[in-house]
Amino acid sequence: MSILHKSDCTNEDPWRAAWAQQAPDRSLQVYPDLGEVETIRYALVWDPPAGLLASLPNLEVIFSIGAGIDHIAKDPERPKHLPVVRMVEDGLTAGMTEFVVLSVLWHHRDMAAYAVQQNSGLWQEIEPKLAKDRKVGFLGMGALAGAAAAKLCILGFRLHGWSRSPKQVPGVIMHHGEAGLAEVLGESEILVCLLPLTAATEGIMNRRTFAQLPEGAAFVNVGRGGLVVEEDLLAALNCGQVGSATLDVFRQEPLRAGSPFWSHPKVVVTPHIAAKTMAESAVASVMANIRRFEAGEAMLNVVDFERGY
Amino acid sequence: MSILHKSDCTNEDPWRAAWAQQAPDRSLQVYPDLGEVETIRYALVWDPPAGLLASLPNLEVIFSIGAGIDHIAKDPERPKHLPVVRMVEDGLTAGMTEFVVLSVLWHHRDMAAYAVQQNSGLWQEIEPKLAKDRKVGFLGMGALAGAAAAKLCILGFRLHGWSRSPKQVPGVIMHHGEAGLAEVLGESEILVCLLPLTAATEGIMNRRTFAQLPEGAAFVNVGRGGLVVEEDLLAALNCGQVGSATLDVFRQEPLRAGSPFWSHPKVVVTPHIAAKTMAESAVASVMANIRRFEAGEAMLNVVDFERGY
Repeated sequence: MSILHKSDCTNEDPWRAAWAQQAPDRSLQVYPDLGEVETIRYALVWDPPAGLLASLPNLEVIFSIGAGIDHIAKDPERPKHLPVVRMVEDGLTAGMTEFVVLSVLWHHRDMAAYAVQQNSGLWQEIEPKLAKDRKVGFLGMGALAGAAAAKLCILGFRLHGWSRSPKQVPGVIMHHGEAGLAEVLGESEILVCLLPLTAATEGIMNRRTFAQLPEGAAFVNVGRGGLVVEEDLLAALNCGQVGSATLDVFRQEPLRAGSPFWSHPKVVVTPHIAAKTMAESAVASVMANIRRFEAGEAMLNVVDFERGY
Repeated sequence: MSILHKSDCTNEDPWRAAWAQQAPDRSLQVYPDLGEVETIRYALVWDPPAGLLASLPNLEVIFSIGAGIDHIAKDPERPKHLPVVRMVEDGLTAGMTEFVVLSVLWHHRDMAAYAVQQNSGLWQEIEPKLAKDRKVGFLGMGALAGAAAAKLCILGFRLHGWSRSPKQVPGVIMHHGEAGLAEVLGESEILVCLLPLTAATEGIMNRRTFAQLPEGAAFVNVGRGGLVVEEDLLAALNCGQVGSATLDVFRQEPLRAGSPFWSHPKVVVTPHIAAKTMAESAVASVMANIRRFEAGEAMLNVVDFERGY
């Protein structure tokens, strides 16, 4: 019985160490070394090549290294009878919380405008607002958004959230469905996009939805590049409908050389680093699910392909 | 009986409104209109011209509009028998908390380095650390620093603090005195400077103390420009001893055109906007103290000129 591990890390040492410490009785195969494929029962993967998973005859569970599973769903040969498990682990959640709180505060405190002023040596106060007077909206209210929203709530922000189906979240005014989307956009002086990428969310931020934001709203995308129609975002930035943005994810990654986002004065570009799966806590999360599975119990965070996440 | 109000705001309307609402029975004189100077019993001031306070024969209490009182102490003619009250009010505390949390997260998440990468179109991950593995130090642990530290504690940071005299602060490992200063500097991957400017703190961050930080530490100054020997900070930045900085205050404000801080790639310059006294909550704080004073009770936040704040 062995576990296949395929990440996109350049350094697999922390992963090897975490597996050795937490699953010393399991045999580990680190891709591209598959060993005897018949022995592989579990696979923990990021962006598996098409057909890889189908080539493992005794595979029982597919674990995603990331919170999203679009990198697995796009494999046309994915064995559809096998459960796929999203990554929910403390390190990923903590990193995303930090980055979202940072990005919301950055836009809340007009730091994009101050950066432009700094560039031209301009010393000029921009009339501030306190968090208690600032409305922040979330598209998506899963484990990551929920954790970030809880911290923003403690910092005093007024929070709105949008989810596919009705949901209650402490400290957040929740909306759902098509009508709810327009409501949450209308309230979002700062909008945080943290949705999974599915057929229903592809291009959800487009000319029409950017226009539903308050004029000059800030936009933070820490979900997936495919959630955004990038030309529409650029147009919204250029006409001031979107006042500033933090973009951590793009349709094409790495972001192509020459993309206008690189040099846009009101845009912060980061290379998909908002949150990183941390080997130690991730292996703990996977092993807890493997123990549940082997005990015949229901695993946590199993993907529902009907809804797409 | 009247109250003299002298701010540095271009728009006094919020102040007039707050005074009218919260002290309708008091007569308000907005500088430079002093009215009948004999009637002025209280003065709420920012940066009063030398001699102004001495010219008010029946003045009883001097209130500072800011948290610091260096702008009052520098008046050689200040009536030394009168109590001076520091500003402690919810709006100022909330704004400082936001700005400190923002700045700590900015450096914690390597955003200065990512900004440099963005400028050159470089898509490259910098190995992250989580807040639970990051040590943040505070020079100064008064009302403002304490409020910011409490929120950073909730975000998971490991906190050290330094104060003049021994002090206990929940969630913060406290140090004090000369020996304590070296201790806290040695622990501070990110150092937040939030001290009052006094004879004892003038130039406290200099070549010697910057050298006591861990190599590549981040430096956040939201106290006063005079706390820093600016040439020494610049040298520390240029040799990498200080890796990045957020500077909201300077020895000369506005920061002079041509200062190397404006264009330093690892420095965020803001125009003394970390926290702003908010008219409504500030007038509430002053009026509460005036009521205490008139009832013969001790006022809160009275300056001890022996220690300098």
